[in-house]
Amino acid sequence: MIRAGIVGGTGYTGVELLRILALHPEVDVAVVTSRADAGQRVDDLYPSLRGLCDVAFSLPDIDNLAACEVVFFATPNGTAMHMAADLLARGVKVIDLSADFRIKDVQEWEKWYGMSHASPELIAEAVYGLPEINRDAIKQARLIACPGCYPTAVQLGFLPLLEQGLIDSEHLIADVKSGVSGAGRKAEISSLMSETGESFKAYAVSGHRHLPEIKQGLQLASSENVGLTFVPHLTPMIRGIHATLYARLKQGVDLQALFEQRYQSEYFVDVLPAGKHADTRNVRGSNRCQIAVHQPQDGDTVVILSVIDNLVKGASGQAVQAMNLMFDLSEQQGLQTVALYP
Amino acid sequence: MIRAGIVGGTGYTGVELLRILALHPEVDVAVVTSRADAGQRVDDLYPSLRGLCDVAFSLPDIDNLAACEVVFFATPNGTAMHMAADLLARGVKVIDLSADFRIKDVQEWEKWYGMSHASPELIAEAVYGLPEINRDAIKQARLIACPGCYPTAVQLGFLPLLEQGLIDSEHLIADVKSGVSGAGRKAEISSLMSETGESFKAYAVSGHRHLPEIKQGLQLASSENVGLTFVPHLTPMIRGIHATLYARLKQGVDLQALFEQRYQSEYFVDVLPAGKHADTRNVRGSNRCQIAVHQPQDGDTVVILSVIDNLVKGASGQAVQAMNLMFDLSEQQGLQTVALYP
Amino acid sequence: MIRAGIVGGTGYTGVELLRILALHPEVDVAVVTSRADAGQRVDDLYPSLRGLCDVAFSLPDIDNLAACEVVFFATPNGTAMHMAADLLARGVKVIDLSADFRIKDVQEWEKWYGMSHASPELIAEAVYGLPEINRDAIKQARLIACPGCYPTAVQLGFLPLLEQGLIDSEHLIADVKSGVSGAGRKAEISSLMSETGESFKAYAVSGHRHLPEIKQGLQLASSENVGLTFVPHLTPMIRGIHATLYARLKQGVDLQALFEQRYQSEYFVDVLPAGKHADTRNVRGSNRCQIAVHQPQDGDTVVILSVIDNLVKGASGQAVQAMNLMFDLSEQQGLQTVALYP
Amino acid sequence: MIRAGIVGGTGYTGVELLRILALHPEVDVAVVTSRADAGQRVDDLYPSLRGLCDVAFSLPDIDNLAACEVVFFATPNGTAMHMAADLLARGVKVIDLSADFRIKDVQEWEKWYGMSHASPELIAEAVYGLPEINRDAIKQARLIACPGCYPTAVQLGFLPLLEQGLIDSEHLIADVKSGVSGAGRKAEISSLMSETGESFKAYAVSGHRHLPEIKQGLQLASSENVGLTFVPHLTPMIRGIHATLYARLKQGVDLQALFEQRYQSEYFVDVLPAGKHADTRNVRGSNRCQIAVHQPQDGDTVVILSVIDNLVKGASGQAVQAMNLMFDLSEQQGLQTVALYP
Repeated sequence: MIRAGIVGGTGYTGVELLRILALHPEVDVAVVTSRADAGQRVDDLYPSLRGLCDVAFSLPDIDNLAACEVVFFATPNGTAMHMAADLLARGVKVIDLSADFRIKDVQEWEKWYGMSHASPELIAEAVYGLPEINRDAIKQARLIACPGCYPTAVQLGFLPLLEQGLIDSEHLIADVKSGVSGAGRKAEISSLMSETGESFKAYAVSGHRHLPEIKQGLQLASSENVGLTFVPHLTPMIRGIHATLYARLKQGVDLQALFEQRYQSEYFVDVLPAGKHADTRNVRGSNRCQIAVHQPQDGDTVVILSVIDNLVKGASGQAVQAMNLMFDLSEQQGLQTVALYP
Repeated sequence: MIRAGIVGGTGYTGVELLRILALHPEVDVAVVTSRADAGQRVDDLYPSLRGLCDVAFSLPDIDNLAACEVVFFATPNGTAMHMAADLLARGVKVIDLSADFRIKDVQEWEKWYGMSHASPELIAEAVYGLPEINRDAIKQARLIACPGCYPTAVQLGFLPLLEQGLIDSEHLIADVKSGVSGAGRKAEISSLMSETGESFKAYAVSGHRHLPEIKQGLQLASSENVGLTFVPHLTPMIRGIHATLYARLKQGVDLQALFEQRYQSEYFVDVLPAGKHADTRNVRGSNRCQIAVHQPQDGDTVVILSVIDNLVKGASGQAVQAMNLMFDLSEQQGLQTVALYP
Repeated sequence: MIRAGIVGGTGYTGVELLRILALHPEVDVAVVTSRADAGQRVDDLYPSLRGLCDVAFSLPDIDNLAACEVVFFATPNGTAMHMAADLLARGVKVIDLSADFRIKDVQEWEKWYGMSHASPELIAEAVYGLPEINRDAIKQARLIACPGCYPTAVQLGFLPLLEQGLIDSEHLIADVKSGVSGAGRKAEISSLMSETGESFKAYAVSGHRHLPEIKQGLQLASSENVGLTFVPHLTPMIRGIHATLYARLKQGVDLQALFEQRYQSEYFVDVLPAGKHADTRNVRGSNRCQIAVHQPQDGDTVVILSVIDNLVKGASGQAVQAMNLMFDLSEQQGLQTVALYP
Repeated sequence: MIRAGIVGGTGYTGVELLRILALHPEVDVAVVTSRADAGQRVDDLYPSLRGLCDVAFSLPDIDNLAACEVVFFATPNGTAMHMAADLLARGVKVIDLSADFRIKDVQEWEKWYGMSHASPELIAEAVYGLPEINRDAIKQARLIACPGCYPTAVQLGFLPLLEQGLIDSEHLIADVKSGVSGAGRKAEISSLMSETGESFKAYAVSGHRHLPEIKQGLQLASSENVGLTFVPHLTPMIRGIHATLYARLKQGVDLQALFEQRYQSEYFVDVLPAGKHADTRNVRGSNRCQIAVHQPQDGDTVVILSVIDNLVKGASGQAVQAMNLMFDLSEQQGLQTVALYP
């Protein structure tokens, strides 16, 4: 059994890790830290885990964590970068679900995240944990930077087109809609049900932190310069991201075949049959990305619909997928749940 | 008091007309028809109207309706076109909330709506009931074709830019999200709460019936050829439309000033201060359209956020706004409700 | 025009007062206070009020408030009791939407609210603002204690039976379900959409602050001792309270006639026809209470269904109803909105 | 591998069986029937099952079904009773999720379900499939009548008290709230999101079909006469049932100990610690019932909170639990999922 630790176990990505790992046959969650809830049993705070998780939250302690083989950071941005080096030095693999190691350009990171980076020397080593582009690197990695939720949905949707140079890469549009759990388990008025229920809005149109991450990923896949307009929206549901992606085609191409071939050996990316639409409910609770490709009225604009569960393929599920690769397990281990429909 | 009739009073646009007209000081709703519910009191089916509506549903009868000064059609497509000519001939003004008279090109209409038009001779006369572009014509009209919900939100968002020729009109993108009441009060599995709640999806990406209506409206405002990619989405809320519109700017322009000037004398179109985002909850139950304009990273892509309540400004409120104009009342009569927040 | 002030304008009962009073023909809202948002325009925080409210939030200042004829307290518990005496002394009528003056027994109040009462001398004078039992007293009052949301729905449902001594008053059961706006506009994890959406739970079963208020009201209506089990629940919607009330009948009675007669002259209490069920959507946004009475299988248990909008008849609408009475206006002034269905 | 068939695979209990059985290590779903969708691939209708279910819907055919070892009926009431005898005769075990075999008194059944029973001779043999009271009988059974969703939540909550004769059994009250999936996947206006979203109501107060089933179950557990007032409510969420149960205690008792002892060896019934409240989200998607017991103000009224997922422990999960027992598998096989929170 792999001994695992979770730093920041009281946020939504933390409890989602607990949900997934509780049934993972090869993992034992030995340490779950929380400054605010230290001492309390995990299943007292989260009764859904009663009988499935026999630990209490503890204060984050480097020695406790160093006794694990792998430590997940399900923390706010700016925490993992302070602890990762110590853990790596003591032989612990680190999987960071926050943004600390996602951006290779440290100045860009510091601009968007508004703080100095505490471990810039680790950034180059960190592997961006999107198995669909980085599988081999993940297998060898000590430090994983898990992709953000928006970046996962957007990159998986654009990659096949960018890799083949088929679209005008300078004017990409990503109109993306997220459920409210993406805002995290934080006491904020803007996330109250009375504020977000029965309503729909865009936010951060002038610039969202996931923009540089998405652009970095798309640029790596493209031989041409990438320009992107990214508009995130908040939609009145708990889980799910729906990315609607628009690009101008430079030439005719069998879009359906292109996407099917690109993802034919990817267990967690499912290209829907031609003419279908993706629906977030069909991936709710599962680690899948479902993608549909359309070319309305056979015009020169391609429309890609890409859906994930933001807490699974967009966060904790993807982190476990990376862990499976790092420990040479089956990539699907512990992730074979079926979406909860209805 | 204006004697009004409503044909098709049991759908959501019908009951929304009843809600608005119940408190309209100049209107008396004398006839409400429904084939399915004839004989039943209106407030028995809709207890929200108890004490405010003292009529029963009746079978649609041309003589009864002809005793009204104005008749609203809140019917499925294909009904108004069979009755409008008779009513007009008897001096009744007709306001059609369905799509029967919206498209000027009858062949285009027949292609998208899948039926032969029963009154093609009336199409030319029908006035498209968007007061913000057709106020004078509406005042003189006998027959109004009320705009669809999507077309209202999209046109009001794009018009200022197209009228001034500021954008590449051939590659417009309208990514639009609607609440589920837009699907109407029909017994369909796809509209069940178990199907639409907690989920988000695009639909009809290959072509939605509102596409030709939107294109027709945008083309009239533009001196250049209009091309549009329109992707409607279903969002898990009851009321509200949020249009996110994308266009390429051809030149620098003070977007905020442009929009504020275009709509400065429009009571029902409210341009939000620079930097703000529109939110459907702020127009829920009201006849307002709120618009925000953004130019992310000062690039060449403009992003317009345009929100309405699909049943009010997108349907019944707009119909009453047109009626007010036709009967020389204050345009705001009966429409001065404040949005229901939270 | 009546010059009105609102202390605590940034909570849900505050903004609901603003929504109602914005269209009230006899009231001018001159002062809206908020410690947190002082200086900000009201319609900047609440864009639904743009064009309808031309004031900015100010710090609470007794001189400013004393220039009003009436001041509403839409504050947390424990604020009004510190300011009411001063305002009354300067001739201002006070309508308190919080719990400060609801309980006549000050020790009971202090036990449930966990603080010392700052103005115990005013408690006796304060009139409990439920017009359906206290109309004449409200007309004469200087200080109104508006009923809580749960107490309004429960009392209106039980009153006809208790007043006539028809039920076993010692074993009443009130199983009540509230929308989440009842928890207020406070940054709390337990009110996040991710916590409350798609879920249902009871809370405070061991004792909720509204219990003594409800018991006090029921006891006043009954000549026998009142015992009550009150279980509040949180339901995943924003507005609405549904009280399901159970009592044992002591004798046969025409329940439908009893309720219809009790409320026949009450504009805001609507007894539904026999056999119907109440539904919170039919009072959403309106000041109505709708009640249905059932006697399942003609047994000895009566079941009353009583619904209100917690922010209207359960708070701000009822406050305006009281204000109308205090200023000798029509009781319905400004409150004649139709519920927003769907 | 156990070869299983599902009759009526397109309803919510059918697709929930498919979700559970897709990952059950001992079951192969070989036949899924649907009159309406025969010929269509299952995963075409339910994309959440893509890659996990390789069959197409077929017309119900007795020979096909007879080749299975077990057949589940996820059909409307009145279907299983026509096919069960044939299947049993051919050695197939039958698990009926509908109400056909739940009521032992055939006249009572015919009264509530409005049809003649087609197989009254099988009623006596049918075992009521609530393992917590009937485990041994289920192991030996050929024909299982799965309990309804409301009856499961209510019975598990009342049983410990009734079995010990601790409460006044003649005046039980069950105030129960259900998510909308309980109404099934049927095209009905009353189940539209526009009708059920953001609203709460009671229904069928005069008498619901689950009343006789609940009473029958409670009566079997009690040595005294059982009287029950059962009021079902519709709550705006998809999954979940919350039963709030009220009874008068006849004597003092350690309620917490009573419930913990009664269910100490029941894997799927979890008694929460004293003082806690049950929440439907904590059992969403899982086969658990969570129960909390309260005695407000130490009075003589006991309040039990009992929550389940109506589609799992209230239907398909319970059916698989019964199947596991019938085939001598571990009772938890295929049912060890963790609730989906948030």
